[in-house]
Amino acid sequence: MLAEFDLIRRYFMSSQEASTASNGVTLGCGDDATLLVPQAGQQLVVSVDTSVVDVHFPREAPAFAVGHRALAVALSDLAAMGATSRWCLMALTLDQRQFADDEATEAWLADYAQGFHALSQQHATTLVGGDVTSGALSIGVTVMGEVPVGEALTRGGAQAGDLIAVTGALGGGAGGLALWQQGERDLSHPLLSRYLLPQPRLAAGLALRGLATAALDISDGLLADLAHLREASQVGAIIALDALPLADELESTLGREAALKAALSGGDDYELLVTLGADDVAEAQQRLVPLGLSLTVIGRCSETLGVSASDQSDLSGYAGWQHFSGEAP
Amino acid sequence: MLAEFDLIRRYFMSSQEASTASNGVTLGCGDDATLLVPQAGQQLVVSVDTSVVDVHFPREAPAFAVGHRALAVALSDLAAMGATSRWCLMALTLDQRQFADDEATEAWLADYAQGFHALSQQHATTLVGGDVTSGALSIGVTVMGEVPVGEALTRGGAQAGDLIAVTGALGGGAGGLALWQQGERDLSHPLLSRYLLPQPRLAAGLALRGLATAALDISDGLLADLAHLREASQVGAIIALDALPLADELESTLGREAALKAALSGGDDYELLVTLGADDVAEAQQRLVPLGLSLTVIGRCSETLGVSASDQSDLSGYAGWQHFSGEAP
Repeated sequence: MLAEFDLIRRYFMSSQEASTASNGVTLGCGDDATLLVPQAGQQLVVSVDTSVVDVHFPREAPAFAVGHRALAVALSDLAAMGATSRWCLMALTLDQRQFADDEATEAWLADYAQGFHALSQQHATTLVGGDVTSGALSIGVTVMGEVPVGEALTRGGAQAGDLIAVTGALGGGAGGLALWQQGERDLSHPLLSRYLLPQPRLAAGLALRGLATAALDISDGLLADLAHLREASQVGAIIALDALPLADELESTLGREAALKAALSGGDDYELLVTLGADDVAEAQQRLVPLGLSLTVIGRCSETLGVSASDQSDLSGYAGWQHFSGEAP
Repeated sequence: MLAEFDLIRRYFMSSQEASTASNGVTLGCGDDATLLVPQAGQQLVVSVDTSVVDVHFPREAPAFAVGHRALAVALSDLAAMGATSRWCLMALTLDQRQFADDEATEAWLADYAQGFHALSQQHATTLVGGDVTSGALSIGVTVMGEVPVGEALTRGGAQAGDLIAVTGALGGGAGGLALWQQGERDLSHPLLSRYLLPQPRLAAGLALRGLATAALDISDGLLADLAHLREASQVGAIIALDALPLADELESTLGREAALKAALSGGDDYELLVTLGADDVAEAQQRLVPLGLSLTVIGRCSETLGVSASDQSDLSGYAGWQHFSGEAP
């Protein structure tokens, strides 16, 4: 068995040691803990997400995607707060028995680390701590970001009359999972890439600061996450099903009904769900243009609690998408 | 299956919501991330530790102890830095199939939460984030503390001539594990309690700030952790075996040789290993008196690298204690 310290050193420490100086890191990995210097005038924004094999991602998923995805889903929470990502810690639990030999373990780790690092570098997020343990494959990622005092986006600010909008497209996560389960393995397929290589919307969250009245990321599915926003803000919601931006190739792959269901309750999309005043929509859309990202109005907040469709469709029929995790205990 | 949000709410959110106001928490659990306000003039100290069933603790360990221990081993890293603990995040992965029914799951969770909270309250550490996922039992704990700029204890400050000392007693972790494996289940047994309910030495770390030239916590075993300190500080070490403070009942339970081996390489003690100038030992010991904790000099740092025993014993004979994790893959 490869020793823990060897693992950490070889695949994780070298790359971030080089980048510590400019990132507020006084003492990096390798001591009992890491010393960080937050910026004055900023609030610290922290969140943790665990990705478990056979629950959140398939056992046969490429190691690169496993590393990317574990960090992406955690960063998505910072995006939903309008925070700038700064640091992360990674707790990797790895079952070496799943590999033929040390060489296979190392190959997997190298790919995994590459996926993790590529995304962390893209978002200027320095890996400042970690733990490698033996057990069923699982990755816990703690992310730490910053936001100017009072400017964070929360779930609780929506008011009746606000419009409801989403970034990008919906249903790709669930559509990609369906394709994976049918045997598709080409990660360049737009749906599969949405499922296994989601892009956290950090730049969008930042751009929507000062405009969005509430925000969260869509991880559990649009209806489920909208319910969290409704509860926190004490508003209702009316959704226009025809307005839902469906992921590329989703409808052609699954058919209209399943595509709608994927968009409404599939989850794993990691787009931002936001509310904003009607007068601010154009400005918000304008801000996302440089990011190559759309912002689509899909409904509005109502005083009457609960959720309904503007065309009177029965939304309960769209609940209950078979999540990957639904197959686990 | 109990829903994630129910689990989090019922056992973890209520108790810390009451304590957020005075703890630098602007927005607590329940949003995508938590907002914290670090104190000015302090460095942030962060670390993550994962505790995996059958690797770090036995499957049949009392839930109270599992919760206590998962937090304790993480806090121990803050203690080793001389930091004040402030916040933690907990990622719990739980296999509900191991329980007979929802009632059994809830009973386990209630005990687990009680163990976690009792310790977090003892050390004024507010739980500010979490994730509950389904899978093999495992707990990832991220701890966040603070230390005045420049005052953190690190592994790299020891110099030749410094004395080497440890807090409390050694070998209890390994001795307790041995007892557990022999069927002992009484947590009031001093050795078993050392193994399953370790006490992070946060107050000692704080008291030794400004005196200790280097510090780390003993999790892998004295010799292994001393090797980390020696490497970081580029010093050698000479150890007096007769001086090692052995845990209560360790020698009478295991015999002299096994007791020494447990103290030298057993690990899981979570005592602090520190170096300090000869002139500072009395002052350091004095500072620990109010904590009811001893500080025992066990050797000194040498210019010659490597480690040896002052009585010329062959230390290699004491390596290789059969760790619990040694039985896992």
